[in-house]
Amino acid sequence: MAAARPMPPMDTASGRNVLREDLPLPLCVLRGGALERNVTRFQRFSEASGVLLCPHAKTSMSPALFGRQLEAGCWGLTFATCAQLEVARRHGVQRVFYANELVGAADIRYVCGELRRDPGFEFYCLVDSVAGVQLLAERVAQAGPGRRLNVLIEGGLAGGRCGVRDIAAAVEVAEAVRAAGASLALVGVEGFEGLVQFREAGRREADVREFLGFLAGIAETLDGRGLFAADQVLLSAGGSAFYDLVIAELNAVRLRRPGRVILRSGCYLTQDWGIYDSLLADIHRRTGSPQPALEPALEVWAQVLSVPEPGLVILSAGRRDFGQDAGNPVALTHVRRGSAELRPLREAGWRMAAASDQHAHMTVPPGHGVEVGDLVALGPSHPCTTFDKWRLLYLVDDDYTVTDTIATYF
Amino acid sequence: MAAARPMPPMDTASGRNVLREDLPLPLCVLRGGALERNVTRFQRFSEASGVLLCPHAKTSMSPALFGRQLEAGCWGLTFATCAQLEVARRHGVQRVFYANELVGAADIRYVCGELRRDPGFEFYCLVDSVAGVQLLAERVAQAGPGRRLNVLIEGGLAGGRCGVRDIAAAVEVAEAVRAAGASLALVGVEGFEGLVQFREAGRREADVREFLGFLAGIAETLDGRGLFAADQVLLSAGGSAFYDLVIAELNAVRLRRPGRVILRSGCYLTQDWGIYDSLLADIHRRTGSPQPALEPALEVWAQVLSVPEPGLVILSAGRRDFGQDAGNPVALTHVRRGSAELRPLREAGWRMAAASDQHAHMTVPPGHGVEVGDLVALGPSHPCTTFDKWRLLYLVDDDYTVTDTIATYF
Repeated sequence: MAAARPMPPMDTASGRNVLREDLPLPLCVLRGGALERNVTRFQRFSEASGVLLCPHAKTSMSPALFGRQLEAGCWGLTFATCAQLEVARRHGVQRVFYANELVGAADIRYVCGELRRDPGFEFYCLVDSVAGVQLLAERVAQAGPGRRLNVLIEGGLAGGRCGVRDIAAAVEVAEAVRAAGASLALVGVEGFEGLVQFREAGRREADVREFLGFLAGIAETLDGRGLFAADQVLLSAGGSAFYDLVIAELNAVRLRRPGRVILRSGCYLTQDWGIYDSLLADIHRRTGSPQPALEPALEVWAQVLSVPEPGLVILSAGRRDFGQDAGNPVALTHVRRGSAELRPLREAGWRMAAASDQHAHMTVPPGHGVEVGDLVALGPSHPCTTFDKWRLLYLVDDDYTVTDTIATYF
Repeated sequence: MAAARPMPPMDTASGRNVLREDLPLPLCVLRGGALERNVTRFQRFSEASGVLLCPHAKTSMSPALFGRQLEAGCWGLTFATCAQLEVARRHGVQRVFYANELVGAADIRYVCGELRRDPGFEFYCLVDSVAGVQLLAERVAQAGPGRRLNVLIEGGLAGGRCGVRDIAAAVEVAEAVRAAGASLALVGVEGFEGLVQFREAGRREADVREFLGFLAGIAETLDGRGLFAADQVLLSAGGSAFYDLVIAELNAVRLRRPGRVILRSGCYLTQDWGIYDSLLADIHRRTGSPQPALEPALEVWAQVLSVPEPGLVILSAGRRDFGQDAGNPVALTHVRRGSAELRPLREAGWRMAAASDQHAHMTVPPGHGVEVGDLVALGPSHPCTTFDKWRLLYLVDDDYTVTDTIATYF
């Protein structure tokens, strides 16, 4: 066997057209116009809301898109694992919010090495237990980053993920950070309210507000006890589901030291055709404003391989090509082979009945008008778990002609 | 931003130890001993069963593992998309069973280009409709591969995926292939019985046997009508769930021309800790034999980030690190930080209650004995959807010391 080598360069893709079948199928496209508008609009929305934007970049893990977000003016980028951080650092990202506990020995060595090597690298991570603080402090002291590591206390939801569950625990953790003051500096409070989206719809808003109130309570208590080590206190929350509430609640927090709110939403980049589409409608309804006006930009294009039964169409894309964790993709568009005419499918009664690794099984109504060789676009729910299926996405114009290729580094 | 560039070489990983936290977490390991035994044992099992083995290599998409399977003596390798085929060809794979309909214009151009360029390249794909045959023949004629394309008729399950649903349709498709005899050559019959595994347990065996009987019926009919173009008729089925039945039923088919049975099982390479573990037990029960003796070889190692509530442990691996389509991974092993002692968890009452993108939420019983910084191994169900989460897996010895790195090309 030949030695493994990386994928070939795909620079030759520019100018090729998806609808003409110039490229192997299935493939994943980013609609360039929608993407650009989303980047600009969400940045403006954050600025107008008086918060710093530090988008979660694990969504795309695409340095080309990191670049667009930074150029548009975001404060920094958010990551969740050391492997992601390495990609960011190799591509020149200088301010990283690590929205996770930093625990592993090799991970901590890597972060400290980067801090030592590059005085311009700015890094923030989370702590949520005394044991975690002591372990982090010990490992940071061994690794010698040459400066203190910035940490935020994470507040968590009961039954949820990481994070202290009450203010007393937050105080204990903050005191542990102070005791480790040679290695660690407490600079803020963080939480992820997004897990509330899995609760029943009627209580979500109240639960999010209560959780944000809990984070505010932590910040006020630690501020009152002088446990923050910096002149400015960072308050960070915000997935892509409830950022209107994060803005409203955290902007209202009043501390003795000045505070800055950092929003970490990542899915605005492409929006989606499912869960975040619905959650954005909720945001518009709650705020009574059409802002931010975001458009779905991510589509998976597949081919009709077979129409083996009257009501069944088999497409050449499956669970290796799109995420299913927030529901199956919806059928968006049908293009007859050899045509460039886009026939909308959203109201056509198509449904993804099942997905295999490499196939989607679509149940379709009589008179579906689809033949072997036709193209069908699918619109995923939850961009994160569709991006991570692809090493290469195609940036396309409104006619689905490729303008650029976008590499990912999952 | 710096231009995108590939992952750094990981040759330096050899000799590092997972349990000592020498490597960033989470990570995915292949246990080298189990993997080697599986490769050898399944090859021997196929030979002893009188079938050709052409494993589905989309499972791993790892050229290093393709090489091991070919060295062990497999007949060829199976793939399902053109992107996969390109990886195989770049790494020197010479005999490919494309277990899918080949439809796209760019895909067909690529295959024909490879056939023209390399006389040693042997390729087989599927057809299941007259429309598909005509489209394929037209595109092959345009692309000029310099020889005929080998096709097999796919037989399908009602309500399932691709494939003709009755023998009359198979005859029509076979006649369309004969009519396209300048471009296409009919060399066999294929089916995928694996979809039966989603039916109720009590009727699976009968349904699989009935389906294999249907494939046999297609082969007998086409053979009787002289519709096969080659001296030897290929009969292929076999995912990783019912290969005992495939061997029994398809080996018993008697045609006028000699037939060869090709088994395409791919998951034997690593087995798993869930669905294929259970399906292998069914195979052993049905055959009354402990053969093939396969061992689970794939594990995802994560770190305890937080124990935020008494019965809740948060690990640093999530849905981006393991598949969930065939059930959540099981907790396998706990290693106290700084120790190398493996404590089994399978009977310890741990359960993965939920997974986020980057976290697993484990509910654990009182007295779980786990602390922040400890390591936990997870055992996935369905190897295919865990392999595809990683660009790099670590081959480890019994002490979890890395002996090699395994690159994947999804």
